[in-house]
Amino acid sequence: MKFIDYFNTSIDSGIWKEKQDLNRATTIYSVYDRFKETGRFDAFKCDWKEGMPFKPHIFWDSDIAKWLESVAYLTKTKREKELEVIVDKTVDLIEKNQDENGYFNIYFTVVEPDKRFTYRSHHELYCAGHLIEAAVAYYNATGKRKFLDLMCRYVNYIEQRFIINKDTAFTAPGHEEIELALIKLYECTGEKRYLDMSKHFVDIRGTKEDIGGKRYDQSDKPVRQQTTAEGHAVRAVYLYCAMADVAYYTGDKELENACVRLFSNIVNKRMYITGGIGSSSVGEAFTVDYDLPNLISYTETCAAIGLALFAMRMLRLDNNSVYSDVIEKIIYNGFLSSLSLDGKSFYYENPCEIIPYLHYRDVSYNDKNRALPLPKTLRSEVFDCSCCPPNITRFIASIANLIYTADDDTVYVHQFIQSKTETVIGGKKITLRQLTRYPENGKVRIKVSGGNVRLAVRIPGWYDGAEYKTEKGYAYFEVADGQTLEFDFKMKVKFIQARPEAVFDAGRYAVTRGPVIYCSESVDNGANLRDIRIDSKAKFSYGKNEALGVPSLKVKAYRTAVNDQTPLYSEKNNAFAEFNAELIPYYAFANRGESEMLIWHLVK
Amino acid sequence: MKFIDYFNTSIDSGIWKEKQDLNRATTIYSVYDRFKETGRFDAFKCDWKEGMPFKPHIFWDSDIAKWLESVAYLTKTKREKELEVIVDKTVDLIEKNQDENGYFNIYFTVVEPDKRFTYRSHHELYCAGHLIEAAVAYYNATGKRKFLDLMCRYVNYIEQRFIINKDTAFTAPGHEEIELALIKLYECTGEKRYLDMSKHFVDIRGTKEDIGGKRYDQSDKPVRQQTTAEGHAVRAVYLYCAMADVAYYTGDKELENACVRLFSNIVNKRMYITGGIGSSSVGEAFTVDYDLPNLISYTETCAAIGLALFAMRMLRLDNNSVYSDVIEKIIYNGFLSSLSLDGKSFYYENPCEIIPYLHYRDVSYNDKNRALPLPKTLRSEVFDCSCCPPNITRFIASIANLIYTADDDTVYVHQFIQSKTETVIGGKKITLRQLTRYPENGKVRIKVSGGNVRLAVRIPGWYDGAEYKTEKGYAYFEVADGQTLEFDFKMKVKFIQARPEAVFDAGRYAVTRGPVIYCSESVDNGANLRDIRIDSKAKFSYGKNEALGVPSLKVKAYRTAVNDQTPLYSEKNNAFAEFNAELIPYYAFANRGESEMLIWHLVK
Repeated sequence: MKFIDYFNTSIDSGIWKEKQDLNRATTIYSVYDRFKETGRFDAFKCDWKEGMPFKPHIFWDSDIAKWLESVAYLTKTKREKELEVIVDKTVDLIEKNQDENGYFNIYFTVVEPDKRFTYRSHHELYCAGHLIEAAVAYYNATGKRKFLDLMCRYVNYIEQRFIINKDTAFTAPGHEEIELALIKLYECTGEKRYLDMSKHFVDIRGTKEDIGGKRYDQSDKPVRQQTTAEGHAVRAVYLYCAMADVAYYTGDKELENACVRLFSNIVNKRMYITGGIGSSSVGEAFTVDYDLPNLISYTETCAAIGLALFAMRMLRLDNNSVYSDVIEKIIYNGFLSSLSLDGKSFYYENPCEIIPYLHYRDVSYNDKNRALPLPKTLRSEVFDCSCCPPNITRFIASIANLIYTADDDTVYVHQFIQSKTETVIGGKKITLRQLTRYPENGKVRIKVSGGNVRLAVRIPGWYDGAEYKTEKGYAYFEVADGQTLEFDFKMKVKFIQARPEAVFDAGRYAVTRGPVIYCSESVDNGANLRDIRIDSKAKFSYGKNEALGVPSLKVKAYRTAVNDQTPLYSEKNNAFAEFNAELIPYYAFANRGESEMLIWHLVK
Repeated sequence: MKFIDYFNTSIDSGIWKEKQDLNRATTIYSVYDRFKETGRFDAFKCDWKEGMPFKPHIFWDSDIAKWLESVAYLTKTKREKELEVIVDKTVDLIEKNQDENGYFNIYFTVVEPDKRFTYRSHHELYCAGHLIEAAVAYYNATGKRKFLDLMCRYVNYIEQRFIINKDTAFTAPGHEEIELALIKLYECTGEKRYLDMSKHFVDIRGTKEDIGGKRYDQSDKPVRQQTTAEGHAVRAVYLYCAMADVAYYTGDKELENACVRLFSNIVNKRMYITGGIGSSSVGEAFTVDYDLPNLISYTETCAAIGLALFAMRMLRLDNNSVYSDVIEKIIYNGFLSSLSLDGKSFYYENPCEIIPYLHYRDVSYNDKNRALPLPKTLRSEVFDCSCCPPNITRFIASIANLIYTADDDTVYVHQFIQSKTETVIGGKKITLRQLTRYPENGKVRIKVSGGNVRLAVRIPGWYDGAEYKTEKGYAYFEVADGQTLEFDFKMKVKFIQARPEAVFDAGRYAVTRGPVIYCSESVDNGANLRDIRIDSKAKFSYGKNEALGVPSLKVKAYRTAVNDQTPLYSEKNNAFAEFNAELIPYYAFANRGESEMLIWHLVK
């Protein structure tokens, strides 16, 4: 099984075309401007000295690296000379300031050069990993080797220190990332040494040789023994990506089984309905099974992205729609929520519920927002720890990576996105044309040309129709050259319930239509959303929220009828006032100022 | 209108008899032992020096003072020589260590003697107030004047510094208490000077002359202009007590109106159904209207006590059952919950919901219970800030204070507690005999002897019967000597709803029977209480929880039916498993180890 790279696919209509255009026209520049203003780009000059502004932070290299990687993806599909110049200048600065031995890290060059490789949580290998990913992407996009060569030098140095000399103060990085980056370097160069290095870092993790390991960074036990997703959620899923990669390339069944267990633990017990993961702000971490409080969800954007990347790698091991269904859930919900509709601002934490007053409740103490670990009500253009914005730009720019995989005779269709794809199957150059307005509706046409091919098409997990015979969630079709497959995955509006262990959802229901989760906002529905009851027998009308330009669902609903004289507490009386509620896609919330937002509704 | 003191009433059966016996036999000694162990009693020797253990804290005087006051109440109704000896020894130490000028405070004698009266939040006047209350109570109980005289000397000094010289660094105390204590001193001695002092402290608060005032300590504006209950909840209600007292003795209608407004704001917008107040652990404070999240309720015991004391004072201004209904709500729920059934341990914060795993969710980070301001799941025997335990002992010992008030021709019956009371009405010595098992049932007989008298009997706010003509919630009866009034306030089990603004209760219902709020615990009902649905049409059976020896309500209920294969999220399916739920009085929760606890239930 192989991936089909984003650049073999052109997305030409629909929501992802819009997001990709926005990314190209706005978001990439917005992230650049904020990074420029905050000194992150100039930091690559490595001329900071004590007393100067913009003291580099230990993970700034990675912020810029993800931006560089984003530019690579953009420029591969359509040349962006202005952006390419910025990349080249940055690469020149890396070249200029790279140590003779190959080491490169801004912070540990200008701030604490004597602290190189002394502490597992210093993010050096994390930064290295993102630089490697960027270098690989840029080489693939432009054919320019310089960045890649610089990073290969750095990797050689890392190998020397960590694997040959073993003279570093730690053995596995506190923040995983280099493991999956080394796989990309292996895939790009074909050098097995990089695969071995990745395997080395995966294998040593949590063993007796691994110094300072904690559950927080997934190193309290060897990875093959891990059964539950623990610790910092982004670190965890980045590790799991590499584990799945190593299992794929080495055929290591034990490692694959660990991946299956960890994925299952996440999606069955530790994932919000949005696909968001990492419930707690303490350690940005997974917590315990079924701990999914909506109001204080942490659900970092990078973690949702990482889970999608992990799921995509699992598809390479086992073509099973448990993985592609989760990818779909993430891209239309817990990932897409991270970007404002204008493409300029971002959520780091993606709230699963918003009650604005809770941010201002401690007025008596003049101590705002201290008591509760609430995610922000509105998106920001940049963060002190700004890992998410450039992760969003690179993920959108390369989202076509998620649509297909293929093996010798079959193309696996995971996501429904209008696009044209070319790939070689069994020696024949096959063109796949997807025509669809998904997720506006579930009509999908897939035309094959260039030869006969087998298509394995994911039947969405949310779809009720029983007309397809499936194997692990996929329907298989022998498609002749020139033939078009047609699907109509009828999208019913559904009420979704959670298992009773997810107590914060108890007695409440999420409204979904196809893969899209809907939410209510007080700007449309008035205050006290938790009190509104959606009429469970009423018909939803699917239309448009004019203010936002996004789909909406209108439905009859009720709220508790009270007047000024109604006491705070009174006997249950079943008096309700009817009104017309309007729900919008979860991904579109918080685009009209601060507002209540609710996913889990009462019904009546 | 006058109060009828606790010592004119002997409670001889029922729940309060049990609690008073427990208080006398166990709780008073439990608090003593813990205070002795933690150096609080020995601190009165004032011989602590740097490097010694048990460094006094600025509010230790008040912890002991409330214990001394408790002993006074106990010994007045039945001599407790052993305890009296401890009081006398403590008073001797106060005498020995009181400054020549009358000042007394342990901390500002042995730790920072140069900081006397330099900072409004140093609790000096708060400690003074509690010592005054104790001295008054001890004098009333024993006739021994020494303690009272010592405190009068201290009050003279306070008057000299704060009112005559005006040479202190602040003008009003950061923690109110002395204001209401001065009223008690006035009532005890008849010296109007003390009333004037109380009025002075009440009046200066929040004015331009009041230095360092904040909303946190109710001094952002003059008290007559305050319309919402703000800041530290205990401080607030102690202030309001004094405001009501001053209004009562001076006839100050503006001040009375402020009290009416503040009381109304609390009970209509800022009070949990348990009678608990102060939603936030940040500043132990009131927050904003309708902010009543159950899981993170702060609801300090002292605040509930203070609200009952405030309500009692409001009854002296206006005989209205809005006040006495709240007292009833507090004493059977949010106050009574503070004491373990064995009488040995205490809640400082009284949880309005418990989900134990939330205390341990941040396992990945090894950082227990940091993220969420959750109240403790179990009671403790002592706290670093241990204001609540001796407040509980004194409140229970003097709970008969809450039963009656009287004026020249009428006795007002506020609470239904089996007891015998003697009081003088219109020159006649009247005996009131209450026979009741309240709140086990609502049958109450009140026999009058010694003369004819008018009785005003509170018709409980929870009672549905319409057979009584009431004025402000009271039914009036002309009762002849020897006559017995009989009532039968039939206790239906009710579902109570909250206003929709109290969003954390939305779609859920509290179960009550008479004044008692019932809750479920997972020890009786299994896990995931938020998911259980009480059958709203089923009959509750009233019986006993055998393990606890408290009443219980059994009822048909349902929980979401799932099996191991049920996904975390699935389409609404209305599959439920029936079971028999058992609810216990809220006050009895958390007496069988750590358990989920829920007040607000789903119904079906």
